[in-house]
Amino acid sequence: MTNILEQVLAEAQKRVNQPIEAEEGVVTSTGKTITEFVGTAMGDTIGLVIANLDSQLHQYLGIDGKYRSIGFLSGRTGGAPHVMAADEAVKATNTEIVKIEMARDTKGGAGHGATIIFAAEDVSDARRAVEITLEAIERNFGNVYANDAGHIELHYTARASQALELAFTAPVGKSFGIIVGAPAAIGLVMADTAVKTANVDVVTFASPDNGTARSNEIIVSITGDSGAVKQALLSAQDVGLATLGSMGETPKSASIPTLI
Amino acid sequence: MTNILEQVLAEAQKRVNQPIEAEEGVVTSTGKTITEFVGTAMGDTIGLVIANLDSQLHQYLGIDGKYRSIGFLSGRTGGAPHVMAADEAVKATNTEIVKIEMARDTKGGAGHGATIIFAAEDVSDARRAVEITLEAIERNFGNVYANDAGHIELHYTARASQALELAFTAPVGKSFGIIVGAPAAIGLVMADTAVKTANVDVVTFASPDNGTARSNEIIVSITGDSGAVKQALLSAQDVGLATLGSMGETPKSASIPTLI
Amino acid sequence: MTNILEQVLAEAQKRVNQPIEAEEGVVTSTGKTITEFVGTAMGDTIGLVIANLDSQLHQYLGIDGKYRSIGFLSGRTGGAPHVMAADEAVKATNTEIVKIEMARDTKGGAGHGATIIFAAEDVSDARRAVEITLEAIERNFGNVYANDAGHIELHYTARASQALELAFTAPVGKSFGIIVGAPAAIGLVMADTAVKTANVDVVTFASPDNGTARSNEIIVSITGDSGAVKQALLSAQDVGLATLGSMGETPKSASIPTLI
Repeated sequence: MTNILEQVLAEAQKRVNQPIEAEEGVVTSTGKTITEFVGTAMGDTIGLVIANLDSQLHQYLGIDGKYRSIGFLSGRTGGAPHVMAADEAVKATNTEIVKIEMARDTKGGAGHGATIIFAAEDVSDARRAVEITLEAIERNFGNVYANDAGHIELHYTARASQALELAFTAPVGKSFGIIVGAPAAIGLVMADTAVKTANVDVVTFASPDNGTARSNEIIVSITGDSGAVKQALLSAQDVGLATLGSMGETPKSASIPTLI
Repeated sequence: MTNILEQVLAEAQKRVNQPIEAEEGVVTSTGKTITEFVGTAMGDTIGLVIANLDSQLHQYLGIDGKYRSIGFLSGRTGGAPHVMAADEAVKATNTEIVKIEMARDTKGGAGHGATIIFAAEDVSDARRAVEITLEAIERNFGNVYANDAGHIELHYTARASQALELAFTAPVGKSFGIIVGAPAAIGLVMADTAVKTANVDVVTFASPDNGTARSNEIIVSITGDSGAVKQALLSAQDVGLATLGSMGETPKSASIPTLI
Repeated sequence: MTNILEQVLAEAQKRVNQPIEAEEGVVTSTGKTITEFVGTAMGDTIGLVIANLDSQLHQYLGIDGKYRSIGFLSGRTGGAPHVMAADEAVKATNTEIVKIEMARDTKGGAGHGATIIFAAEDVSDARRAVEITLEAIERNFGNVYANDAGHIELHYTARASQALELAFTAPVGKSFGIIVGAPAAIGLVMADTAVKTANVDVVTFASPDNGTARSNEIIVSITGDSGAVKQALLSAQDVGLATLGSMGETPKSASIPTLI
C-alpha cells in the first residue's frame, strides 16, 4: 500500500544534515532571476520574500502599512513543525508573524500543510526569518513519526513566542508542548496519558470538527513547568508509538529525534 | 494510476472473515502494556478505551460527569460504515454516543474518515461497544464499492438508533437508508433515482459545501417503510455502479455485499 | 515519490484531442440504460442530466420551480478549469448556473474538485450545457502545470459570464483572469508579480483559511483591460513556473497551453 507521508518523510530524511544552500534566487524560462526565492525545506516547503508588497495585496492580507516587506513559507506536509520553526525565527529577528494558515494537506496523509507570513520593515529581516524557519523545520521533523496508517508528533519549547501564541494561544515565555496523533483516536489516548503523567495544563484541544482544517488528528497543547511538560510529552510519545504501531509497521522518525 | 481507496479496500477484503483477535493491549518500547488498546478494523481503524478519562479532557470533550469511561474509534477511510456500526453497538450496550466527527480523509480518496466516542459509567461497557463496532465495520464495508475514479455506498437498517440520530437526525426506531456517491454528481443521480423508485422521504442532503468535511460526495439519507427504503437503495446502487463504472473499472465491493 | 496530480494530468494528456464520444448513456448490470449519462472528461469528471428532477431534491438544492431539468458535473481534480468551462457553456445555452461547489480533493494533490449544476426549462439545453463544459474542460487543463510538489494555473477570458460571477464575483462582460499557486506561497508571489506588472484590480483573494475548501492554494482573480489582464497572467505564469520548478521537476502542462 502506498504511504505518501512515509515517502515524504523518507525523502526528507535523506536531506537532513545537508546544509541549505545559499541560493541567490531561481531563474525563469525568460532568463529573469526571481529574487523572491529564499530556499526549500522538507515537507515540500518553499520560502519566499517580497521586498515591497503590492498595496492591494497588503490590504487583502490585513498587514499593517508600516511593514513594506514580507517573508513567507508554505509546506505541503507540516503544521506544528513549521509553527515551532517560525517561533524560533520570530525570537531571533525583527519581524512579526501576521498570518498562520493550515491547509488540509500532507499529500493524501492525515494532517495539514502550513502557510506562515512574517512582516518586517526591512526585507533583510524578512529574509532572515525565512532562512531560520527553513533550517528549523528540518530539525522539527525529527519528532514526527509515521507509518502507513498515520503519524504522531511531539514538540517542545522551553519558551513559547509569538508563533505559538498566534497558532495555539500559548502563554509567551512559558514551557509549551504539542501532542499530535493521527488517526484522531491516537491523539486522544496520547493526550490522556500526557495529562495523567505530569502536572500540566491543557491550553488547546483540536479535533477533526473543531480547530483543525478537517484533518484526521487530535492536537492537544500543554503548558507547565519545563520538566513536567517534557515528561508528559515523553509518556504521550511512548503510547502514541505503540498504538500507531498496532495499526501497521513501526512508526519511523522523519529525521533525527530530539525528544528522547 | 494509484488508487489509494482501491488499495485500502483490497487490503480490507483480505481481512474479512478473519475474527478480530482478542488482544490484551499492545506493548510499548519500554515494556509497558497499553491497556487502552481494544483492536483494529479495516479502513485503518483503531479502537481504544480509557477507563477513567482525565478531568481536563472530560471538559474539552463536553462529556457528562457521570461517565467515567470512554470507548472510541478513528478510521482513515469510512464514515457511514462506522456510524452504522456504532448504531448497532449503542443498541447492544449500556453506553451513550457523545461525539461523531468526520475528517476529510480516505488517504487521498474522495471521502471521509470518522471518529466516534462512546461514554459509559463502566469501562467494560465502553470496551464492549468498541468491540461490536469494530466487528460491524468489517461487514458494512461490503456495501462500499470503489474504483479509481470514486466510490459509492449504500447502507440500510431496519431500526435506526442513537448513532444515526446524532449523525443524520434519523428518526429513532424507523427504517433508514444512506446513499453516498463520489464524485458528488454520482450521489445526486443516485438520490434522484432512489426517491423516484419508492415512497421514501429525504432526511438529510449533504454536498461538498454543506454537511460534509468538504469531501467530494453527495450523501443523502432516507426513511420510509422497510420495503420502500430497501427498494430505493437497490435502484440507487444500480445507477451508482453504472455511472461510476463509466469513469473507469467496474467498481468492486470492499468485502461481502449484503444489499443484494 | 508518487505524485497523484501528475499522474492524473498525464492520463488526461493522453486524452486531449480525442473527441468526446457521443455516448447514449451507460447500461446497468440489470440491462437498464442510464439516460442521465452525458459523458466524461479529464480530471475524473463526469457529466449527467436529469430531465425531471424529483421535487424533494429540487427543494434541497434550492432550485427555482420553473426549472424542471438540471445538467451537472463533478470532477475529482479541477475547480478553475471547470468554472471557466461552465462560463462558456452558460453563454451558449439557455441555462442558469444554480450551484458551484468546491470539494477539497485532487486525489491527494493540493487543490480542489468541483461540482457545477445548470438548471434549464428544457432537458436538451441542460444536456448541451454539460456537453460544452466537458469539451472546454479538456482545453482549460492546458494552462494547469504540475509537478510532484504542487501546481500552478492561469485562466483568461475576454468576457466573464455567470459562472465566474457566481464563483468569483467577476464583473460580467469584462476581461477576467484567475491565478492559482500551490503550495499557497507560490500563489502569493505570482499574485504580487501580476498586480505589479500591469494595471489590474484584484477581485478576490482566497487562501487555505478563507475562500478555499482548505486547499493548499492561494487563488487570486483580477480584472482590467484585456491586454493588462493577459500581461499580468503571463508574468505570474513565468514566476510560478520558476518557483514551483525550484521544488522539483519542471512543471508540465496537462494538455496544450493556450496562454503563451
